[in-house]
Amino acid sequence: MKRARVVVVGGGFAGLTLVQKLKDAPVDIVLVDKSNHHLFQPLLYQVAVAALSPGDVATPLRTIFRRQNNVEIRLDEVVAVDRSRREVHLRSRETLGYDWLVMAPGNEPSYFGNDHWREMAPGLKTIEDALTLREKQILALEMALCVSDPHERKRLLTTVVVGGGPTGVEMAGSLAEIARKNVEKDFRGIRAEEIRVVLIDGGERLLAGFPEELSMRTLEDLRELGVEVRLNTRVDKIDEDSVWAGGEQIAAGNVVWAAGNIAAPVLKTLDCELDRVGRVKVEKDLSIPGDGRVFVLGDAMCLETENGTLPGVAQVAMQSGAYVAEIIKDNIPGDRRKPFKYFDKGSMATIGRARAVAHIGKLKIGGFFAWAIWALIHVAFLIQFRSRVRVMLEWMWYYLTFSPGARLLYRYRIFRERKRRVPNGSI
Amino acid sequence: MKRARVVVVGGGFAGLTLVQKLKDAPVDIVLVDKSNHHLFQPLLYQVAVAALSPGDVATPLRTIFRRQNNVEIRLDEVVAVDRSRREVHLRSRETLGYDWLVMAPGNEPSYFGNDHWREMAPGLKTIEDALTLREKQILALEMALCVSDPHERKRLLTTVVVGGGPTGVEMAGSLAEIARKNVEKDFRGIRAEEIRVVLIDGGERLLAGFPEELSMRTLEDLRELGVEVRLNTRVDKIDEDSVWAGGEQIAAGNVVWAAGNIAAPVLKTLDCELDRVGRVKVEKDLSIPGDGRVFVLGDAMCLETENGTLPGVAQVAMQSGAYVAEIIKDNIPGDRRKPFKYFDKGSMATIGRARAVAHIGKLKIGGFFAWAIWALIHVAFLIQFRSRVRVMLEWMWYYLTFSPGARLLYRYRIFRERKRRVPNGSI
Repeated sequence: MKRARVVVVGGGFAGLTLVQKLKDAPVDIVLVDKSNHHLFQPLLYQVAVAALSPGDVATPLRTIFRRQNNVEIRLDEVVAVDRSRREVHLRSRETLGYDWLVMAPGNEPSYFGNDHWREMAPGLKTIEDALTLREKQILALEMALCVSDPHERKRLLTTVVVGGGPTGVEMAGSLAEIARKNVEKDFRGIRAEEIRVVLIDGGERLLAGFPEELSMRTLEDLRELGVEVRLNTRVDKIDEDSVWAGGEQIAAGNVVWAAGNIAAPVLKTLDCELDRVGRVKVEKDLSIPGDGRVFVLGDAMCLETENGTLPGVAQVAMQSGAYVAEIIKDNIPGDRRKPFKYFDKGSMATIGRARAVAHIGKLKIGGFFAWAIWALIHVAFLIQFRSRVRVMLEWMWYYLTFSPGARLLYRYRIFRERKRRVPNGSI
Repeated sequence: MKRARVVVVGGGFAGLTLVQKLKDAPVDIVLVDKSNHHLFQPLLYQVAVAALSPGDVATPLRTIFRRQNNVEIRLDEVVAVDRSRREVHLRSRETLGYDWLVMAPGNEPSYFGNDHWREMAPGLKTIEDALTLREKQILALEMALCVSDPHERKRLLTTVVVGGGPTGVEMAGSLAEIARKNVEKDFRGIRAEEIRVVLIDGGERLLAGFPEELSMRTLEDLRELGVEVRLNTRVDKIDEDSVWAGGEQIAAGNVVWAAGNIAAPVLKTLDCELDRVGRVKVEKDLSIPGDGRVFVLGDAMCLETENGTLPGVAQVAMQSGAYVAEIIKDNIPGDRRKPFKYFDKGSMATIGRARAVAHIGKLKIGGFFAWAIWALIHVAFLIQFRSRVRVMLEWMWYYLTFSPGARLLYRYRIFRERKRRVPNGSI
């Protein structure tokens, strides 16, 4: 019997879990991803704040699947799906036929129609994004040491984080903490209190997906770390020097965009209904309506449940991957599939180095204990990857010494940046 | 009494050693470097072959000098020296006055008048260079899996290394060894013997700075690893697809330039005699003729000795830095300075994972024993930096598992590259 061919688009948590669960299934898998690595997204912000290196949070897909013989990896991008012919079209102009198609392409930052903000306010989705943020941050500190104009200095030392979800909270908390503990030691001449971190969110509270009591706790913790939190505040404009929000102009050297996402554009070519953030409205078995051999997973799927649509978190992605793997492995026909059930193991967000909030079942906790749970879970996850020893050592070192070793600048040069930003040569 | 101001240009081995030795001296030091880190250059090729990560071979200068209070670090570039006013001009348009000036700006690849070769054949001087080579190498492997044309496949799997000095030998040996041990496992569909590494040198033997018997040994070792070595061969032309050398066209997906260096151009502004590779001809105390308060160190200096001019190696750089630190610390006048004496502790080069050649005094050794000495010395050097534990673990891991963890691609995308390189879309 001819083995079924499974095309998997995206090697994030959903795609990776699915492929791993199909290890012993009698299928041939082609995994297509435009990057050559799986990214441990929940720790990416640590690369952006120079606490970890890219190699600590990413592993080449070929390394992960070195011993799995039924998977072929393609470094390519799916540009369109042709469901009538059961084919996907790749950027390289190749075409792949499929018996099963699993779309898990993830999402990207959404600027709500203001795509020109992207250059000034990068999101935090890829290693390149994290390195960009990291290098901008380091450059701003170096430049602050050189300028004589106090306004320019203040601008350089101000970072605005847009979006009060987990990513925004984690970035803002880490940046504020590093300012306190670290910057003064390494950048003599900059005082900790000169460094401003402003966190802006359009909603009434931070971490809207969490219980209100943890949102309050987060707000307190962030304020204690020195973060200026602006709630109910919308960003009106971002230009080269400033963020304009709630009628105020905040001059900023660095802006991080963590305010919203839009699912990958390729989903449009599936020719089925999308929600307002571009996700595919899937059936209860995560297939697309009327086509039981095409699935959409993770951040790209919109699944209605009694508690609203499922959030774009790693847990949902992994569980959706494992669920669909079972269907494919046993070739279960559409009418005999049990609906996907998400088991919520809880959600958490860290705030700086030793604080977090966690919501696990009915448990709502904050502070160091929540952080310890967070650290444990994340290290445990990393155990599937080889970098675990290194990451743990890094963390221990970082924790003990407050010494970020990853603070390397190797793509930008200060004078290039300067030329662009200080055209009149005041320095 | 006013403290003397020492301006140090370059945070390589020479500049770093000098500043460290001036730790307790009653001087104010300004260290100017255009990158924010010290680079452990002898291991940079390991980043290029994806065995180590950037953070393993580089440490931020601010971290190194965190506890040294008499040094200020400037991320900037010296564009000119004005000796008559005792000032240096920076790229940022600032000017720094000095009482002592130490120029240790290093060198850069020299293309012998063919600067347009640079794009196709990057050198190996900076972390960015190493990442460029690494990503080109990984991309070529990924692309080879996609092309159907056998000539294109052969081209993609061919790497040409130009220059048979230590860097060229180390690159060629590592690449050949990785091809053998590693590539087949991770890139199913590519056979080890398809991967070609060609090492080209214009001279009669490899490692011209070593005794002839070690050159022979190196040649044998490299050939055993599968490297095609072409001696007495000059490169005539490098274009987008090929290297033309000795009348032959070698279609190559990747070219590494390790053939020659030229000292940093800023040295021209010192207004004194340079040798043919742009180095400053210094006096016996490493000062420039007629100006005992300006020194040139490391790869930028040309010092005649009875055995010819000193080579551009880390040992020379470090010893020159330590020597000049003594002069500055004790403010020794020109006529009372003992001439600089280089103590040659030996030189070595690795060939692949467990072979090396070493020349230490009268000792000439090769093979595993030489490699063990090499590894020991290099790990010992790294001990001054925080990354030592991590580097050792990495090495052990790499050595035991043949699994390079640093094989991440995060700056280039394959389809961008493809577009440029396969304009007619044959794939």
